[in-house]
Amino acid sequence: MISRSRVRVRYAETDTMGVVYHSNFLIYFEIGRTDYFRDLGFTYKQMETQDIYMPVTECYCRYILPARYDDELEILTQFSALSRLKCKFTYEVVRVMDSKLLAEGYTTHVPVNSGGTPCRIPQAYRDALLGSIQK
Amino acid sequence: MISRSRVRVRYAETDTMGVVYHSNFLIYFEIGRTDYFRDLGFTYKQMETQDIYMPVTECYCRYILPARYDDELEILTQFSALSRLKCKFTYEVVRVMDSKLLAEGYTTHVPVNSGGTPCRIPQAYRDALLGSIQK
Amino acid sequence: MISRSRVRVRYAETDTMGVVYHSNFLIYFEIGRTDYFRDLGFTYKQMETQDIYMPVTECYCRYILPARYDDELEILTQFSALSRLKCKFTYEVVRVMDSKLLAEGYTTHVPVNSGGTPCRIPQAYRDALLGSIQK
Amino acid sequence: MISRSRVRVRYAETDTMGVVYHSNFLIYFEIGRTDYFRDLGFTYKQMETQDIYMPVTECYCRYILPARYDDELEILTQFSALSRLKCKFTYEVVRVMDSKLLAEGYTTHVPVNSGGTPCRIPQAYRDALLGSIQK
Repeated sequence: MISRSRVRVRYAETDTMGVVYHSNFLIYFEIGRTDYFRDLGFTYKQMETQDIYMPVTECYCRYILPARYDDELEILTQFSALSRLKCKFTYEVVRVMDSKLLAEGYTTHVPVNSGGTPCRIPQAYRDALLGSIQK
Repeated sequence: MISRSRVRVRYAETDTMGVVYHSNFLIYFEIGRTDYFRDLGFTYKQMETQDIYMPVTECYCRYILPARYDDELEILTQFSALSRLKCKFTYEVVRVMDSKLLAEGYTTHVPVNSGGTPCRIPQAYRDALLGSIQK
Repeated sequence: MISRSRVRVRYAETDTMGVVYHSNFLIYFEIGRTDYFRDLGFTYKQMETQDIYMPVTECYCRYILPARYDDELEILTQFSALSRLKCKFTYEVVRVMDSKLLAEGYTTHVPVNSGGTPCRIPQAYRDALLGSIQK
Repeated sequence: MISRSRVRVRYAETDTMGVVYHSNFLIYFEIGRTDYFRDLGFTYKQMETQDIYMPVTECYCRYILPARYDDELEILTQFSALSRLKCKFTYEVVRVMDSKLLAEGYTTHVPVNSGGTPCRIPQAYRDALLGSIQK
């Protein structure tokens, strides 16, 4: 399964070089992740109300071409399991106008409760996430 | 009492026009506010651990001259009481290099607990804040 | 004419209080402004390529109710002329779920060229903007 | 040579989980990079005025412990050359209070001119940067 999200570059996200400041791509990744959950039929917000958080434990991004103010971007998000606890999302950010790949990267996550203790994701969410890999 | 804080403009705070994006001045104001509490001998963080929050209820900023990447800025912060519950901080942001005033503004605040109910600030904090107006 | 824009609150926009950090509403206002231009049949980006910039000279926001992660918000934007050079946008931010007004405010702008000199907006843009007030 | 920079966590940098939102560590890295140049006796800003830009081509961060509002952090920055054109900065973010390592990562850069064409860094800067590796 691949989730597709659209964002339009905000003026606030650009910098003196006239391009999107690099850290904002991690925020675009977060939008992709949020939509991936929604596409599975639930929301990350719901998981948080059940005391499951998925903080980022690692992130990586490779920048290929710059994005500029008012560009429309598409974020493509995929999920994979790394171990019993650790999981990974991979992302591609594409400029809609010409389908050029601007950046790609990944984030890894370990589910924790609000106390910060690693914990298993409830079975229903787990099944949905693992099931989505095959799709 | 006037609190003085120093910040150096981050690349991330600039935009395509080559200047600090306007909303970041509100973040500079927050730094001034945090330092004002610290100059009084306690921290805003401590107040939060006693279930007192001071969310912004209004903000205003007037922009006079632009700030640019790597500029060193000084934020001057003053406090005033508006009523039994409402208070106000006023700010000036000055470029250190030439002492030019870049922006000025204010924020108003009403203390609330974590449930969002307006509440009185504990007496010790209240005395310190009110005392600082005369200084 | 009233422009309507939709945004979904990003995790990055929230703070320790569990609500949208106040300065982000100015970024929501910017989205409203960008869409207002687009609704008139051109883009703010196009204006910039003709060396017309509209930096914010003043901003004000009043916060009524907090926005939270994943909330869908609607931004309502209106335009008014203040003088031969100065103009004003006013904004309302409404929570889509229950139509509650979360915040309202305004920004004022003076058009300048890339050298920072105040200048008149080209006639075509000017006519469109002034025409939109009556609509 | 290791550059040391201090930052205090801003309220705006935290999120609903009560910790610094992960993308802000890339902004802390940028502060470290800026200070590394300054410690060498020039500024990144100066390089830009000579039409040399060093955009981020890759970034990576591993998160070990969370940072919270008002925490004082130290950023340790080191430089290494990867090839004739590509270079790398590595970073550690340490909590000052207890010297705990909160995050570590790197960014890679290729110098370009304002047209985006890869170019050599002027000799004086190049010598200073390469010289700093041995220190």
